[in-house]
Amino acid sequence: MTGKIFPTAQDAENAFYEALERADLEGMMAVWAEDEDIVCVHPGGPRLTGQDQVRESWARIFAAGGRARVHISQQVAISAMMLAVHSVHENFTVEGEARPRAPIVATNVYLRTAAGWRMIVHHASPAQAQAPEAAPAEPKILH
Amino acid sequence: MTGKIFPTAQDAENAFYEALERADLEGMMAVWAEDEDIVCVHPGGPRLTGQDQVRESWARIFAAGGRARVHISQQVAISAMMLAVHSVHENFTVEGEARPRAPIVATNVYLRTAAGWRMIVHHASPAQAQAPEAAPAEPKILH
Repeated sequence: MTGKIFPTAQDAENAFYEALERADLEGMMAVWAEDEDIVCVHPGGPRLTGQDQVRESWARIFAAGGRARVHISQQVAISAMMLAVHSVHENFTVEGEARPRAPIVATNVYLRTAAGWRMIVHHASPAQAQAPEAAPAEPKILH
Repeated sequence: MTGKIFPTAQDAENAFYEALERADLEGMMAVWAEDEDIVCVHPGGPRLTGQDQVRESWARIFAAGGRARVHISQQVAISAMMLAVHSVHENFTVEGEARPRAPIVATNVYLRTAAGWRMIVHHASPAQAQAPEAAPAEPKILH
């Protein structure tokens, strides 16, 4: 586990998607809290809990190859002292595919730990086609 | 909007699933924060944001009829001062169907408001068959 410190939940989110694009397993796991209560749901997949299940799932995804770019849009963010919740659309463009894939909707939850902000929940599922939404709201800060 | 006050996030979650079982639209909307940043993803559906989209979706679901019982299992809960995150499996039994449906995995996020705890995110998606998990962990309280 690296000693990387993310000063904000957004820093942790940026590192999460950078690791995902690079297929970087150590970078990915450095974003997650070292906690057995972490929860990860890949699109169409079962709920995975704990470091072992989450690491193993990303290892399998990254080993399958297929480099992708992901553009994050329509973020809705709610932040409190210790927890932050981001709802985002993930827009994947996969090498060798002519068109971007249908978006994925993800709920990402971050926890403020002694070692900075870390991810504790990533819940992703395919987002159906939908009516266009208004511009994303300003992040809401609660104290 | 009713003036119902939920002293804990668990009270709000209980009311959410009771309203869902009763197909009670007012009871359902009384659980949600009066906030335009609320987020709801029904299984297989698009992301809905704000009171109007969320209310309209529940109205449509309840109008479609089909009473169901829902049993909640395998809760993982993370709570802080202002936000609480529950990951649960929803196990639906629909009247007239011989067997329970495949479980749904849901991420539910609650916010402590001036009017008690309210739901701000409900993200549900079909949970594939999976290996049995260990008994649910104790809820974790962060202060």
